[in-house]
Amino acid sequence: MVEERLVSREIHLRQRPFGIPTEHNFQLVKINIPDLKVGEFLVRNLWMSVDPYMRGRMREIRSYISPFEIGKPLEGGCIGQIIKSNNDQFKVGDYVLGNLGWREYWLSDSTESDVTKIDSNMAPLQWYLGILGLTGLTAYVGLLKIAQLVDNSNSTVFVSAAAGAVGSMACQIAKIKGCRVIGSAGSHEKVKWLLDQVGIDHAFNYKEVGENNLSAELGKSCPDGIDIYFDNVGGKHLEGAIDNMKTFGRIVLCGMISQYNLTSTPIGPSNIFIAVPNRLKLQGFIVRDHYDMLNEFYAEIYKWISERKIKWRETVFEGIENAPKAFLSLFKGENIGKMLVKVGL
Amino acid sequence: MVEERLVSREIHLRQRPFGIPTEHNFQLVKINIPDLKVGEFLVRNLWMSVDPYMRGRMREIRSYISPFEIGKPLEGGCIGQIIKSNNDQFKVGDYVLGNLGWREYWLSDSTESDVTKIDSNMAPLQWYLGILGLTGLTAYVGLLKIAQLVDNSNSTVFVSAAAGAVGSMACQIAKIKGCRVIGSAGSHEKVKWLLDQVGIDHAFNYKEVGENNLSAELGKSCPDGIDIYFDNVGGKHLEGAIDNMKTFGRIVLCGMISQYNLTSTPIGPSNIFIAVPNRLKLQGFIVRDHYDMLNEFYAEIYKWISERKIKWRETVFEGIENAPKAFLSLFKGENIGKMLVKVGL
Repeated sequence: MVEERLVSREIHLRQRPFGIPTEHNFQLVKINIPDLKVGEFLVRNLWMSVDPYMRGRMREIRSYISPFEIGKPLEGGCIGQIIKSNNDQFKVGDYVLGNLGWREYWLSDSTESDVTKIDSNMAPLQWYLGILGLTGLTAYVGLLKIAQLVDNSNSTVFVSAAAGAVGSMACQIAKIKGCRVIGSAGSHEKVKWLLDQVGIDHAFNYKEVGENNLSAELGKSCPDGIDIYFDNVGGKHLEGAIDNMKTFGRIVLCGMISQYNLTSTPIGPSNIFIAVPNRLKLQGFIVRDHYDMLNEFYAEIYKWISERKIKWRETVFEGIENAPKAFLSLFKGENIGKMLVKVGL
Repeated sequence: MVEERLVSREIHLRQRPFGIPTEHNFQLVKINIPDLKVGEFLVRNLWMSVDPYMRGRMREIRSYISPFEIGKPLEGGCIGQIIKSNNDQFKVGDYVLGNLGWREYWLSDSTESDVTKIDSNMAPLQWYLGILGLTGLTAYVGLLKIAQLVDNSNSTVFVSAAAGAVGSMACQIAKIKGCRVIGSAGSHEKVKWLLDQVGIDHAFNYKEVGENNLSAELGKSCPDGIDIYFDNVGGKHLEGAIDNMKTFGRIVLCGMISQYNLTSTPIGPSNIFIAVPNRLKLQGFIVRDHYDMLNEFYAEIYKWISERKIKWRETVFEGIENAPKAFLSLFKGENIGKMLVKVGL
């Protein structure tokens, strides 16, 4: 009796994007899943994470993480369920968090892909890619470790891309820690969500304000200055924040989505000199360096969730074939909260 | 019997410079020294410090230190000798460090001007403005506290304006701490001094290299990357360093002399995004926040001086009337080491 071979659809990088990525940069490919060897198990993906940092891996440059290869499947955080197993540690039915998104099925031997079992009773599965995953940890590490935010410091915190996954978590952690929080976002709907639901103190639509008025806008909304700027955008947002930082202000360089698709030399912050007299600290970080904070993060985030202190929102595309669309829409600012693809229909 | 009234010459700010300062921005003014009140004492200046940061105080902007006022004398570090006293704590003949340079004589009541007695037997008097003063402390704090340099870490340190007062001290402290040190300077003579006398590992003339080739030059001289960049220059130096920092590299923002006389919007570092994937920290500082390190600094610097480990060089202008010339020559890069004016002839 011959078992029918399982076919997985996956998204390959067809060519490296120049400027704003297009669907043409991606390719949907069908592959046959090979038989399981000893120790291996087969995972059916249910959810995959779609993140701006992935744009960086589409460039052929040396970085903290190797570039995606042309003609090979993309990678990224995913949640799946084990459907076959030759491994006693990972049983059929177990849910796992892995790093082989952008495909319907993947084989693992439990070591090669940083696979972690997750408890499906604790929270919705896809939360492990967001609020309970690297998204939440990124906001937590950025504020508490990089910016050294302490409880009840009465700080003013400015968050850009505040309605995004990391941004909205940063806003809420800062609020819980007793800060005054100002957020920028790219649509009326996002600003409304931030004010009415997330409950930050002030929010503005940077597209309405205009790139060259960001500094003045921040001057109005933070008349006493900014203690912490959580930068997800870069460019004129960073420059405007530098203009308005308090003495000893901290700028968390988490991401710079405004810069990822530029085809000409970016414009750096012309006012960087202010960092000297105002003793500013600008610090870049990558969440994977800070897994030592996971336990502390989990302890706090579970408590906050149980106290209903966190608003969590997702934008979901369905079907692996729509993963490129989900990715492209990040750069159009179409998502509120975490961008996800539901892979298993 | 009427005592002849003492006349002091002092340098006033005649007008705020626009762009590169000129002698026309300054005015030599004669004033009569009033009689001493109870508690006051009269100091005859012997040396005054001339520093790039003073350019910032000539602008009318809010900063960590109030701007100089038009029609008023300039201020800055100075060393003088007490020639009259109505104060038991400060006796005639005592040498003092104060902050009322740019004049021949000044009255103090020991509180208003941060006056500190100094020991003229320990070192040449003017060293208290340089190697034993804020210049030395600036280099020390920048490397050890801001950049968190530890002994024998085998770090690669790049210092710009390396033949200047702070720069040459930073180079030598880094060498003593076991680092590989690369310096940039603006003349053949400075480069030669850095290599032959100061003894750093590599030095280059940035004017010969060319602004747009700084990144490539640093790539050649620091093939494994830079751990610490001690920035005294800003602009293209900062951008070139960012390109070549190691992961977790630290950039000490001490000063940006390339920016002080600009009349158009400066060009920021276009590559600031690299700070995210490479986890760079850029931090501005002002030495006056770090006087808690003075004792530690003195302990180390006296030891290094006694071991003849420090080369210290001064560029001296004579006469208060030449203080503006000394200041202007800072921006022409004419000084090697500390720029001083010998006031008492």
